[in-house]
Amino acid sequence: MASQKASIPKGTRDFSPGEMSRRNFIFNAIREVFNTHGFLQIETPAMENLSTLLGKYGEEGDKLLFRILNSGNFLRGLFLSDLSEREISKVTSHISKRGLRYDLTVPFARYVVQHRNEINFPFRRYQIQPVWRADNPQKGRYREFYQCDADIIGSNSLLNESELIGMIVEVFDKLSLSVSIKLNNRKILAGIAEVIGETERIADITVAIDKLDKIGAEKVRQELVERGVSEQSVNLLDPVFAMRGNNTEKLNFLGSFLSASKIGMEGVEEIKSIFEYVSLEKIRSKVELDITLARGLDYYTGAIIEVKSEDVEIGSICGGGRYDDLTGVFGLPGVSGVGISFGADRIYDVLANLDLFPASTNISTQVLFVNFGDAEVRFIIPLLRQLREAGIRSELYPEVARMKKQMNYANSLNIPYVVIAGENEIRENKVSLKNMVTGEQEQLSPDELLALLTD
Amino acid sequence: MASQKASIPKGTRDFSPGEMSRRNFIFNAIREVFNTHGFLQIETPAMENLSTLLGKYGEEGDKLLFRILNSGNFLRGLFLSDLSEREISKVTSHISKRGLRYDLTVPFARYVVQHRNEINFPFRRYQIQPVWRADNPQKGRYREFYQCDADIIGSNSLLNESELIGMIVEVFDKLSLSVSIKLNNRKILAGIAEVIGETERIADITVAIDKLDKIGAEKVRQELVERGVSEQSVNLLDPVFAMRGNNTEKLNFLGSFLSASKIGMEGVEEIKSIFEYVSLEKIRSKVELDITLARGLDYYTGAIIEVKSEDVEIGSICGGGRYDDLTGVFGLPGVSGVGISFGADRIYDVLANLDLFPASTNISTQVLFVNFGDAEVRFIIPLLRQLREAGIRSELYPEVARMKKQMNYANSLNIPYVVIAGENEIRENKVSLKNMVTGEQEQLSPDELLALLTD
Repeated sequence: MASQKASIPKGTRDFSPGEMSRRNFIFNAIREVFNTHGFLQIETPAMENLSTLLGKYGEEGDKLLFRILNSGNFLRGLFLSDLSEREISKVTSHISKRGLRYDLTVPFARYVVQHRNEINFPFRRYQIQPVWRADNPQKGRYREFYQCDADIIGSNSLLNESELIGMIVEVFDKLSLSVSIKLNNRKILAGIAEVIGETERIADITVAIDKLDKIGAEKVRQELVERGVSEQSVNLLDPVFAMRGNNTEKLNFLGSFLSASKIGMEGVEEIKSIFEYVSLEKIRSKVELDITLARGLDYYTGAIIEVKSEDVEIGSICGGGRYDDLTGVFGLPGVSGVGISFGADRIYDVLANLDLFPASTNISTQVLFVNFGDAEVRFIIPLLRQLREAGIRSELYPEVARMKKQMNYANSLNIPYVVIAGENEIRENKVSLKNMVTGEQEQLSPDELLALLTD
Repeated sequence: MASQKASIPKGTRDFSPGEMSRRNFIFNAIREVFNTHGFLQIETPAMENLSTLLGKYGEEGDKLLFRILNSGNFLRGLFLSDLSEREISKVTSHISKRGLRYDLTVPFARYVVQHRNEINFPFRRYQIQPVWRADNPQKGRYREFYQCDADIIGSNSLLNESELIGMIVEVFDKLSLSVSIKLNNRKILAGIAEVIGETERIADITVAIDKLDKIGAEKVRQELVERGVSEQSVNLLDPVFAMRGNNTEKLNFLGSFLSASKIGMEGVEEIKSIFEYVSLEKIRSKVELDITLARGLDYYTGAIIEVKSEDVEIGSICGGGRYDDLTGVFGLPGVSGVGISFGADRIYDVLANLDLFPASTNISTQVLFVNFGDAEVRFIIPLLRQLREAGIRSELYPEVARMKKQMNYANSLNIPYVVIAGENEIRENKVSLKNMVTGEQEQLSPDELLALLTD
């Protein structure tokens, strides 16, 4: 066969051993926090029926779904006219029934409905799996990337919001990453729209307020007017634009500003409770109320959470919120839930950028046994097995190669210890252990070797 | 939106928390053995270019690839004639450039060539990822399933074969599963073909001998003749059909039967060395020479390994072998390798069938704190955090619900401990710990609780 160029699809990545151990450092930190908080793991298939995925992510999202071509003669039964007229949409829906997972939330909603009778609510589930999006690849944006989601569904208690915030703090502590956690509540945004007499315009108002940091009050004011919000209503927003201070001060302001709005006051009360629960956890957290925080996903109905690195500009590295009706579209209405999602790939980029990966992620194999030939190998193999059964990552160089070559192999893999067992050592039932970092070398009995490496 | 039926594509599966903890029990055992043997983990994308996948798995395999529909107007530039005449193959190749991973071996070969300059050979890599095949789903056969592969490439040493066998033994010991390990060598099969003067017919002879167990010598003889092997040559096979005894006896027979065949004797010598190395590992292994073992994949050129459960009929649960040219098709010839692949899904079915999953896989969350209301919650939250920081999987019931309901929740999730902190307990700064298995209940101070749960 003619030789082919070795390449992978645009926007996808191979992960080599070094990257894998650094990625696993992140996944393990997240998994450990999920576990200690009593979340249970599930997995769903990479493929979902398109009927499950379509219409859940907006028109843009539908376009970004990776579709799987039906097997067999997928053109059978297709109208020639559709083909000749290139009726893409008709053709597509005919030749493709399945698509790749676009996120973990919609498959989870589908899962909950499908397994409703096995699930014990409130259900604390986590899921760590890749998702696929036919996005234009660019720095920090890939077509295959991992999401790490934790959700609690079937409970309206605000303890859940507080727990999730506690988990966010714990994960980023484990990763020694300083982050800012922003908190908002859809009900506060709804309240603001209500008190300025523009309840219908909540979407426009949310989008505009979201830009306050970037473009400033004046431009937001203009935009709102252009979007058809009355001058008069916009003027009522001035105190909101002017709002400053710490969380308590902001909440006091909103408490009076929104006093006429039932839903607005609900939002304020919710935020207060969440802050109080979080304070009980005695975690050094920097949770800040930020009413400009909206987040794209409009299925959030209560709390909205967003986390950013304090040292690297890369956008949100974790986010989430409360949704009142996750599963309604699949026929199970009124299931409220709240969840967060960690962006492992962006977190990776931040840790790499700040050089925060621990040295341990550079070491995989701990011991290399040098191979001098068959006689030595016979002596080494039983010893090697002992080390491995003690959980020590160790290997025997498979070839009888020059010492230098075997040492280079150890160095290039950052193997910290090399064991040398030549004629003399074997005669005395000893081995020489060379520390590849210090260069020191000492003679040990097999038991001493085991003891030294296991302690 | 109209409510939709919640379902997943045929041949795919959801994994619920119970299944996940049992699956993780298997994956962890395999991963631990891979790690202690100095194998390094890599991951490759779910999608590969079809040019990478096509033609690597035979015609059947090509048909079983899941193809991804190109994004955008995939019909553009397609000849109307191809469409109207339903030229499936032309249309397919035009509208789909990528496919889902069919196994881990071909993507690994592609990886090795693409990253040849970063890799330190001999390269010990492992990979645990799902693969997808558009097969007809049936019991024990799924369209999405996991493979767990370990390969050593860039080394001809037979120590590698012996190591892989040692790893197989260790994995199934950890899973307390009794297995039979069969070993053969392609060179022995080639030698047999040579000494009966049918070197060209090795494929037919391999296929026929493979059926010896099932259909018996007489039928194999017939089949060979039908396939065009001369009566005379077939008669020369009689002693092979009649071969019995333990490994040494078989090797002695083959040593004389194949003495005229250089390649045949190579195979015999290789098997001898592998057996000897394995014996040095002092592992209670049941490795048996079985010359009827062929395995479908014709890229094996040396050792062939196959593992079956001794208690459940389900086919091979692990297999592998030596291949002399893994990467040639991608432009890197002469890279010899040897590898094994564990079938996690079949292993799962065997363990379930024999009820061999440890009880620990039924327990995830260890402690549930009963929720009596806000006052109690304030007392519990700091305590909860202490437990979690000590690595104890614990949770607080988020709602103020009836005691019975909260207890049922704990029971349905097999949570072994429930902590009750009511008014009285709080007054004495104590909690009541209820053992859900024995029903016993005792009063403890927070420190005593921590101590009891962590030891």
